[in-house]
Amino acid sequence: MPDEAITIEDIHAARDRLAPVAVVTPLLENAFVNELARRRVLIKAECLQRTGSFKFRGGWSALSHLTTEQRHRGVIAYSSGNHAQAIAHSAQLLGVKATVIMPNDAPRLKLENTRAYGANVILYDRPGGENREAIGQQLASEQGLTLIKPYDHPQVMAGQGTCGLELAEQAQALDVQEAEVLVCCGGGGLTSGIALACEHQAANFIVRPVEPDSSDDVCRSLHSGQREQNEYQSASICDAIVTPSPGELTFPIMRRLCGAGLCVSDEEAMMAIKIALLRYKLVAEPGGAVALAAAINRQDQLQSDTVICVISGGNIDPTVMQQALEYAG
Amino acid sequence: MPDEAITIEDIHAARDRLAPVAVVTPLLENAFVNELARRRVLIKAECLQRTGSFKFRGGWSALSHLTTEQRHRGVIAYSSGNHAQAIAHSAQLLGVKATVIMPNDAPRLKLENTRAYGANVILYDRPGGENREAIGQQLASEQGLTLIKPYDHPQVMAGQGTCGLELAEQAQALDVQEAEVLVCCGGGGLTSGIALACEHQAANFIVRPVEPDSSDDVCRSLHSGQREQNEYQSASICDAIVTPSPGELTFPIMRRLCGAGLCVSDEEAMMAIKIALLRYKLVAEPGGAVALAAAINRQDQLQSDTVICVISGGNIDPTVMQQALEYAG
Repeated sequence: MPDEAITIEDIHAARDRLAPVAVVTPLLENAFVNELARRRVLIKAECLQRTGSFKFRGGWSALSHLTTEQRHRGVIAYSSGNHAQAIAHSAQLLGVKATVIMPNDAPRLKLENTRAYGANVILYDRPGGENREAIGQQLASEQGLTLIKPYDHPQVMAGQGTCGLELAEQAQALDVQEAEVLVCCGGGGLTSGIALACEHQAANFIVRPVEPDSSDDVCRSLHSGQREQNEYQSASICDAIVTPSPGELTFPIMRRLCGAGLCVSDEEAMMAIKIALLRYKLVAEPGGAVALAAAINRQDQLQSDTVICVISGGNIDPTVMQQALEYAG
Repeated sequence: MPDEAITIEDIHAARDRLAPVAVVTPLLENAFVNELARRRVLIKAECLQRTGSFKFRGGWSALSHLTTEQRHRGVIAYSSGNHAQAIAHSAQLLGVKATVIMPNDAPRLKLENTRAYGANVILYDRPGGENREAIGQQLASEQGLTLIKPYDHPQVMAGQGTCGLELAEQAQALDVQEAEVLVCCGGGGLTSGIALACEHQAANFIVRPVEPDSSDDVCRSLHSGQREQNEYQSASICDAIVTPSPGELTFPIMRRLCGAGLCVSDEEAMMAIKIALLRYKLVAEPGGAVALAAAINRQDQLQSDTVICVISGGNIDPTVMQQALEYAG
């Protein structure tokens, strides 16, 4: 057995904890997109998950795993917005006090929702270079809060893995024997969780992370075999998946199990948002649309007759949705 | 037993025929909308059904019920767009030739999709007052085609009823014992089907049709006890549910089982589209959003702690979606 942060048993246990509260998101298909992508495209609609992204799985998994003592003291998290909402809503449902550190340039909808779920939101100056990890660690130790990291956290990874169990079972029910699973990838929590789930549930499914061109740390890391950094905090509209480097806990799993990464441009992500709206009737945020964008625009880098694309989140500001709708095509 | 067009057995049989092809659409919930509506709101997301509306259920149910001889000769349908796509796509999957009569002012997306699903589309002059039923009957008899009416057709009604079986089971799994089920209503195929399904599956669920203010024939008919007409072909943006009167076959079931109807304005429907996008991450078309609009805007006319709103379709032109996003709030 490889010495990794989690095992398939952790994912099964997370699934049991999530069963009463999480949405089993559907796997959707559209004839027109199949034609456009020249292969069968199945969409795992995680934008329909509670709080509008897969992050609820990890947030609930982590919080429901805490001791009574830890719950009583409260939790802290840092996040550009989707993990923030997941922690805030899970904490609300479990009666736990949550503090969330968010960048002052996070999308408005994400900030508003996190506050509305009852979390104490602390803003930090991302463009100015403030370090969220340092702020989080300091508050955690000062106030005795448990820090729930957005991806490098075993129970968060196990929660995200439940998405992989579901999609593997759903695809197999549609007679899919082999597939590439394209996963929108930031720090790798979702990607590593799905990869581990597929290893056990659907050994012929190859997981491939998808990133924005400007934040391709995971692509480069999988290529070099070691954790590479992004040189600067990028300006991609794909805010949800812009991270400095793959996680310490997530990368060993991705390196062992994932196929090569794929990259798409911000424009391709915006166009994929429009396609998701018109074809699947789903709202995707830019970072949540990169897997679908890759299925449409990187056909020559794909091998399988079937690709499964995770739409990982749908927390997009109305103005950005309007911009996406203005794209031609 | 009442002498009605279909029984619960027809719905169960339709469900068996639909099982291999239809989407079991999810039942979704959002904390913010619950707060806004001051009760629990559950959304049956039929916009995620194949072809983007519940109509696929009825279309497939009817076509899969035809004899080999009938399939060989082909089918004909008239529709403002959602039944059109459902018949075209079902026919394509079953290898049946389909002719569809559509108004020349139907939404562009619906016209394009119906053609793309391979149907022979014949346009009629709706604003000019041409009669689609007459055109349909004539072509059917001239060419030996089987006419599949959009709602007054037993197998279509049975197919739509499968949506009711699903939502009743899904709501019961969430511990809902009593509810009002708000259904976007045109000719009453979906409403009558769901009402019949709930009668048997969830006797404490009351089905209530929802219409645009300007096309309130079902509301008035339920009030008077007989089939009332709309005085003129209205100009509501809710094209999918603008019909001259309740169906001959659907009305007796609605009269026996439904609670009072509800009406909403076009503006309320547009605002509900925005809420569906931002909160549920779902694309609703105007006619598909009226049930959600009623849950938000007709709170004083509702009695139950829980309402289940069907979002019946999501085939909306991008320009209309943009207009909805511009609404304040």
